[in-house]
Amino acid sequence: MAATVAVENLNPKVLKCEYAVRGEIVIHAQRLQQQLQTQPGSLPFDEILYCNIGNPQSLGQQPVTFFREVLALCDHPYLLQRDEIKSLFSADSISRAKQILASIPGKATGAYSHSQGIKGLRDTIAAGITSRDGFPANADDIFLTDGASPGVHLMMQLLIRNEKDGILVPIPQYPLYSASIALHGGALVPYYLNESTGWGLEISDVKKQLEDARSKGIDVRALVVINPGNPTGQVLAEENQYDIVKFCKNEGLVLLADEVYQENIYVDNKKFHSFKKIVRSLGYGEEDLPLVSYQSVSKGYYGECGKRGGYMEITGFSAPVREQIYKIASVNLCSNISGQILASLIMNPPKAGDESYASYKAEKDGIIASLTRRAKSLEDAFNKLDGITCNEAEGAMYLFPQLSLPQKAIQAAKAANKAPDAFYALRLLESTGIVVVPGSGFGQVPGTWHFRCTILPQEEKIPAIISRFKVFHEAFMAEYHD
Amino acid sequence: MAATVAVENLNPKVLKCEYAVRGEIVIHAQRLQQQLQTQPGSLPFDEILYCNIGNPQSLGQQPVTFFREVLALCDHPYLLQRDEIKSLFSADSISRAKQILASIPGKATGAYSHSQGIKGLRDTIAAGITSRDGFPANADDIFLTDGASPGVHLMMQLLIRNEKDGILVPIPQYPLYSASIALHGGALVPYYLNESTGWGLEISDVKKQLEDARSKGIDVRALVVINPGNPTGQVLAEENQYDIVKFCKNEGLVLLADEVYQENIYVDNKKFHSFKKIVRSLGYGEEDLPLVSYQSVSKGYYGECGKRGGYMEITGFSAPVREQIYKIASVNLCSNISGQILASLIMNPPKAGDESYASYKAEKDGIIASLTRRAKSLEDAFNKLDGITCNEAEGAMYLFPQLSLPQKAIQAAKAANKAPDAFYALRLLESTGIVVVPGSGFGQVPGTWHFRCTILPQEEKIPAIISRFKVFHEAFMAEYHD
Repeated sequence: MAATVAVENLNPKVLKCEYAVRGEIVIHAQRLQQQLQTQPGSLPFDEILYCNIGNPQSLGQQPVTFFREVLALCDHPYLLQRDEIKSLFSADSISRAKQILASIPGKATGAYSHSQGIKGLRDTIAAGITSRDGFPANADDIFLTDGASPGVHLMMQLLIRNEKDGILVPIPQYPLYSASIALHGGALVPYYLNESTGWGLEISDVKKQLEDARSKGIDVRALVVINPGNPTGQVLAEENQYDIVKFCKNEGLVLLADEVYQENIYVDNKKFHSFKKIVRSLGYGEEDLPLVSYQSVSKGYYGECGKRGGYMEITGFSAPVREQIYKIASVNLCSNISGQILASLIMNPPKAGDESYASYKAEKDGIIASLTRRAKSLEDAFNKLDGITCNEAEGAMYLFPQLSLPQKAIQAAKAANKAPDAFYALRLLESTGIVVVPGSGFGQVPGTWHFRCTILPQEEKIPAIISRFKVFHEAFMAEYHD
Repeated sequence: MAATVAVENLNPKVLKCEYAVRGEIVIHAQRLQQQLQTQPGSLPFDEILYCNIGNPQSLGQQPVTFFREVLALCDHPYLLQRDEIKSLFSADSISRAKQILASIPGKATGAYSHSQGIKGLRDTIAAGITSRDGFPANADDIFLTDGASPGVHLMMQLLIRNEKDGILVPIPQYPLYSASIALHGGALVPYYLNESTGWGLEISDVKKQLEDARSKGIDVRALVVINPGNPTGQVLAEENQYDIVKFCKNEGLVLLADEVYQENIYVDNKKFHSFKKIVRSLGYGEEDLPLVSYQSVSKGYYGECGKRGGYMEITGFSAPVREQIYKIASVNLCSNISGQILASLIMNPPKAGDESYASYKAEKDGIIASLTRRAKSLEDAFNKLDGITCNEAEGAMYLFPQLSLPQKAIQAAKAANKAPDAFYALRLLESTGIVVVPGSGFGQVPGTWHFRCTILPQEEKIPAIISRFKVFHEAFMAEYHD
């Protein structure tokens, strides 16, 4: 092996970066999956159940038909000239594809677009945001991205100058944030969500952490809020959102609002309110608060992770700063056009009166209802086990139960050189094939242990998962009983 | 406007980054295009001709039918169950779509894939590389990416620790490299291509620049080669490639081989040889040389820029370094699946005997033959003008003519606070609607002036472009005659 490049001489920011959602346990799971293929029967289970990642279609969720009809027609516009398609595609998917193609210069779905994305699609998205919020949105504020992640990286790249620039991030957090801050060489300033109040966000704690960071010379530049929460599944109360916005304005922070789970809500007493709506409801305008809102086609009821579509809506930045944002976007030319089209579709799905509406609504409602039932079943099952407590999954795609581990288990983990929750998750995988992510990958109050489990396995598999989980957990607790 | 975020407190690496391909002149062109729409007849031309970027389908090139058939079927697999498709799709596109879907776990084109891309597609790509080179390729070495750019950024992020880490880059260069090095805070170490030998790469100059950089304390980590060249259009001689590989091995440099134009060759006396093939032909193995080869669906005869597909093949890196590469890739989850599928298709297009083969070959040959004619017409036209000399476009999608500007033009540019070639390009745009990129955006020998012009406008427009260009150029030269 050429010695020129070795781990010792790589960028230390890369070495520092961690991403548990696809980390050690998942790599081990992939090895076990190969083993199941090459040596069937060699493990105490016959399939790997990936509950580590919000990837619904990998577990059997079907795509929404209307969206895929439009994508197929846009990919191969020749079809639109043929009569046979009338029996294969809905009338509104045909008219929508024609309308989308007409909005693309030269109808060229194979061309690089404007670096913010195709203008006509951004118009559609802006109209969707306006309709959602009741406040106007502008196509010039939309940057279409390959999923939400590149937009998060872009803002970190823009704001972080060195290790003295800090970003307030909820703990537990989605590790994209810690990874991106590490890769860009900044300081993650943690604020803790309160597990005992259903993962509530308490401004007093955020303020304390901000002041503490400032006293250490950290220039805190932005606050990340994930709503609905990942990995924690809570939906912020509207009052709480007002407090967050006022806090960011008063403290001069950019508000980075991760709102990719905006259509994943499973309780009647909570609603999604975008931070853009909250900001405007307070009467704040462009001059008051820089705000970035992230949306993705990967989540919601659509779950189109593989299409890598998404956008960020940026408001409250000066023209010269926006030029810099545009410049970084332009270095990567543009996001993929299928993802751009899909982002426009999720913000403007079929409406009552459209041919597809009834079937579209049945698909959408069926998915959300099933996710609601799965969330409830898993939450109830976890709460029935000794040594596990689990908050309600109000939204998103996850549960984040707390483990009360016996001292002997903690010692065994230490002997194996693992965090206790990683030790537990590894044993769970090896006993049951169920893949969860240890809480240590997301951050947690020191001395507490958790794991993140998605609610995404298909509904018919949930009872078996619960029973396998129960058998494992009880055996584990018995083995390490204090 | 909130004062919190201002250009003065942004990441200085972002401010330093430049990307001329979508820079000032292009933004001005977009404004003129809007003016043409809102006030037709208000400009001395009636359309903007974008010759600034290698974006063939934006100028009317049609996508290859077979590729789009397969993409549409994979987007909406329900079609595969319907008999009507037999009259709409070729038999081999149907069988190929089925084969691709079977290689995707759960046939889920809407799921995140393995962070390197779907294994079955990487197998296809590895087989395509093996067949191209006559040396084995391995699916584990392939990382599928959203176009080639993210792979370039990834390697810069990995290798650059600080401003003392240098990357050897050809001048003129594709500004992705200077932009990425600036964004990651490294040092661009230039080596000059020799215009008088058809943009030849001279190892003696590279060695001189390397030693010069080292004497300044720069740790030179990698050498970028773009073959066929961008913006220069040359195809490296095989002998030259051997020298480059030996040089990288002897000097302990990573070889970053930008090979995205591998299927854009317009002369009979040159062939594309991948650096992987050259390395293996020399008998060098994994231990001798770290090599990254980039390929993209955006270029070639396919020109599918909007699909954002591509891959990098990495060889010669140790397992721990590869783990770091995998980790960075995993933070962004995966590249878009349509782009992944398309990357597998371009590396395994229809073969003789397949139903689509004749029409596929006709489309492919037609595009390449037309590009060859367009390159030659534009090259001849430029060379006929006083004050312009232009090397042969052997490959890629560009000509990079040199301008001999009169002193008065240089003074006028200085008075307008522009580089002379930027001044020329701006005047060209305002007189003719033709958008080219000034040589200063790519780098050039100090005191020389160039522009990059794509060969991509549709063939029927080339005569008009040439005549408009000629009228402008002669008037410009007359105006500033010394």
